[in-house]
Amino acid sequence: MGLFTRDIKTMNDLFLHQLQDIYYAEQQLTKALPRMADKATDPQLKQSFLTHLEETKNQVQRLQQVFKMHGAEIKAVDCPAIDGIIEEAEDTAGDVDDKAVLDAALISAAQAAEHYEISRYGTLVAWAKQLGRNDCANLLAKTLEEEKATDQKLTSMAESKVNLRAAS
Amino acid sequence: MGLFTRDIKTMNDLFLHQLQDIYYAEQQLTKALPRMADKATDPQLKQSFLTHLEETKNQVQRLQQVFKMHGAEIKAVDCPAIDGIIEEAEDTAGDVDDKAVLDAALISAAQAAEHYEISRYGTLVAWAKQLGRNDCANLLAKTLEEEKATDQKLTSMAESKVNLRAAS
Repeated sequence: MGLFTRDIKTMNDLFLHQLQDIYYAEQQLTKALPRMADKATDPQLKQSFLTHLEETKNQVQRLQQVFKMHGAEIKAVDCPAIDGIIEEAEDTAGDVDDKAVLDAALISAAQAAEHYEISRYGTLVAWAKQLGRNDCANLLAKTLEEEKATDQKLTSMAESKVNLRAAS
Repeated sequence: MGLFTRDIKTMNDLFLHQLQDIYYAEQQLTKALPRMADKATDPQLKQSFLTHLEETKNQVQRLQQVFKMHGAEIKAVDCPAIDGIIEEAEDTAGDVDDKAVLDAALISAAQAAEHYEISRYGTLVAWAKQLGRNDCANLLAKTLEEEKATDQKLTSMAESKVNLRAAS
């Protein structure tokens, strides 16, 4: 998007812009998740990051499908939000001394990323429906449900054991 | 936090770090919300940003109270996540030509910020409980509920009229 031009003229342009934004975000997450899995100590948490990595790769393909269905070029735009979330996750993780505390920090960081995606996909589903594109909305809603399920799984893991271990 | 030191040694340190992070984030939002209210066209949306600004100022004070209850210095640390979310909100808003489309973009941006806060406060409540600080958890849970309510209100406004107007 240009600095002195206003490139988003319609709701459809806005929808495409947000699609390009989350496409970039998902790609960044496919790079960040293996690093998070490396750092995790709890085997279930490590596995959960690896499982979500596979899911994220599939979500990238699903986005490509939405671009195609919509007749639009597959394209990413910079997303300072996800860059900030990942930067913060890595800064904080780098500051943690204790392995059990690090696991708690990693879950928190992953949930910040999940919530970013939940908000973006929630909006995309609503906009796709408003634009009469229920086909796109249905595909995007699948990802939205996966992100919500991942967030729930992380909450359960934190509350059932990771926080307990970190505080002991 | 130092580049070559590992300052977070315990769960309590991690809790305080996250408190300092969200304290910074809330302060940034008290600066961003008036700009969002200025840009909004729909009077109800404009009012909703101004109402949330007052709520946010109160949340800042609530955080100061939690720092005090916890016997910790009131302090903020940089939060690249909220900086990224706000930067992206302003970049996108600056790119939108049509006023109705801009309202839809502003709601989406505000919901990304709400979801960041929902994730952070959710974690803080869980960690405070784990640390045996139900007094802090109760205060933080009040803010969590306000953020969830704001997110819901934005969804209703988007789905009942703003998206409709933007797509027409």
